[in-house]
Amino acid sequence: MTTPLFDTIALIGIGLIGSSIAREIRHKHLARRVVVSTRSEETLRRAAELRLGDAYTTSAAEAVHEADLVIVSVPVGASGAVAAAIAGALKPGAIVTDVGSTKASVIAQMQPHLPAHVHFIPGHPIAGTEYSGPDAGFIGLFRSRWCILTPLPDTDEAAKAQLRRFWEALGSNVDEMDPGHHDKVLAIVSHLPHIIAYNIVGTADDLETVTESDVIKYSASGFRDFTRLAASDPTMWRDICLHNKEAILEMLARFSEDLAYLQRAIRWSDGDKLFDLFTRTRAIRRSIVEAGQDTAAPDFGRHANDPVE
Amino acid sequence: MTTPLFDTIALIGIGLIGSSIAREIRHKHLARRVVVSTRSEETLRRAAELRLGDAYTTSAAEAVHEADLVIVSVPVGASGAVAAAIAGALKPGAIVTDVGSTKASVIAQMQPHLPAHVHFIPGHPIAGTEYSGPDAGFIGLFRSRWCILTPLPDTDEAAKAQLRRFWEALGSNVDEMDPGHHDKVLAIVSHLPHIIAYNIVGTADDLETVTESDVIKYSASGFRDFTRLAASDPTMWRDICLHNKEAILEMLARFSEDLAYLQRAIRWSDGDKLFDLFTRTRAIRRSIVEAGQDTAAPDFGRHANDPVE
Repeated sequence: MTTPLFDTIALIGIGLIGSSIAREIRHKHLARRVVVSTRSEETLRRAAELRLGDAYTTSAAEAVHEADLVIVSVPVGASGAVAAAIAGALKPGAIVTDVGSTKASVIAQMQPHLPAHVHFIPGHPIAGTEYSGPDAGFIGLFRSRWCILTPLPDTDEAAKAQLRRFWEALGSNVDEMDPGHHDKVLAIVSHLPHIIAYNIVGTADDLETVTESDVIKYSASGFRDFTRLAASDPTMWRDICLHNKEAILEMLARFSEDLAYLQRAIRWSDGDKLFDLFTRTRAIRRSIVEAGQDTAAPDFGRHANDPVE
Repeated sequence: MTTPLFDTIALIGIGLIGSSIAREIRHKHLARRVVVSTRSEETLRRAAELRLGDAYTTSAAEAVHEADLVIVSVPVGASGAVAAAIAGALKPGAIVTDVGSTKASVIAQMQPHLPAHVHFIPGHPIAGTEYSGPDAGFIGLFRSRWCILTPLPDTDEAAKAQLRRFWEALGSNVDEMDPGHHDKVLAIVSHLPHIIAYNIVGTADDLETVTESDVIKYSASGFRDFTRLAASDPTMWRDICLHNKEAILEMLARFSEDLAYLQRAIRWSDGDKLFDLFTRTRAIRRSIVEAGQDTAAPDFGRHANDPVE
């Protein structure tokens, strides 16, 4: 057995992401000891039942005091409070990272609290499902996915290399990016799609002319794809909207402008404009499949799960 | 072996839907003879290579003259031309149906051409994938999906019952609906989702601040879900937009109104409004899974296809 990458890892927050990381650490022996912390006693009890760590505490400060790596996996709006709670207990030389979907706001919230003797390296694994909580995690969640680090200008190279190795051990490809650019990229590839999905499901729910039963029965014609994203954790997504406001509003404005153009093409029966748009979007799907970021199986492979007659 | 439901079935159009029907007919022995027709010689040759029928012709009129059941599976904008082409060749008592995603327009295009001595029963199986063409079809596409019939007021009950039995043999549940209501329901559950998906992929493609490479690499955070719908057949979707214009414009207006409300909640950091919307949309996902219209597996079961380490 190889030497673990870290002696002690503290996981603050043990939802889908935190618990997937916990399972990977145990599976791959990446730490000698894992301390799990979450505010909710019920969630902590469940984490213990699932044997996600070696020690459990509702006190984030208590969790981190021996940790060489601290991974904060909480809704982005809670980042500042976690940083304030752990600041005084952090071991000199410890690496502190997070998995939040917004980076400028997390840095603004956490950095002022953290002592100079730790390495704060914000991160964001681009992975997830529509489920949440410690039961939702699984081994393989990060495999072949990208993990974006947004290191601050003065970041220690050795600490960064160590954190890279950790994510690579989980099967991820690691990228580095400026926090502001990260927030713009995520606004279009993640935040806008979720907001649009929540919105369309809300619109369908409110219609008077089409019943909810109609929507559910015939959802396989497209609608059901949106309901998956719209089933994501509400607290997480409320916080993302509040903490990446500028970039999201910019992308929403672009989206609405383009939609007005498309709407006009429909109203004026401009078939050529519609055909042009509907053609060029195919290429992006192809590139995503070729890049290994989605399955080529029809319908995301849903039919692969069908019973055979 | 039981008696087939029909002696001769003519399939006009042999894309994803037509070729899936062809495979089911052969698999379940639903007809003694299947005649396949499509305008493109290349597609017809491919259909023959795939052994989708017993006879092949580029002439729709020739295809139908002995058929007891004629299934028109072409982009909805081509329905009128097909009806005009086959009208004079149809056998008295034949059932003529279609699979188009808009119903009022298909009826308006086809009915004037069709002779009184046939049973015209418009239909729409709520099933599909993002792929198109004769190679894309497969057995099981219609299983557990709904097929909506929009019969005209004077429709012969025996003919309707016979068409129902056909779709039920393919594993579908059959529903009946007024064409206008069908078009409104499909506008929200299918047409709007596709238009929104095409639009968001177009928006992402046009950005200056985020590169296409960024969009592709990080697409697993939500965006990739939309690219599947946005990879659907452009001709089919151009025609749907042109032929269900009123209902689509109505749903687009509702969607945009709701999006403006959501956008305002983000701008003014109204976390409670966001949380409320993001919470109620979860219930619809649950209902869709419970109704057997989607998989409960995380991420549509994509991870089920991952290699195990």
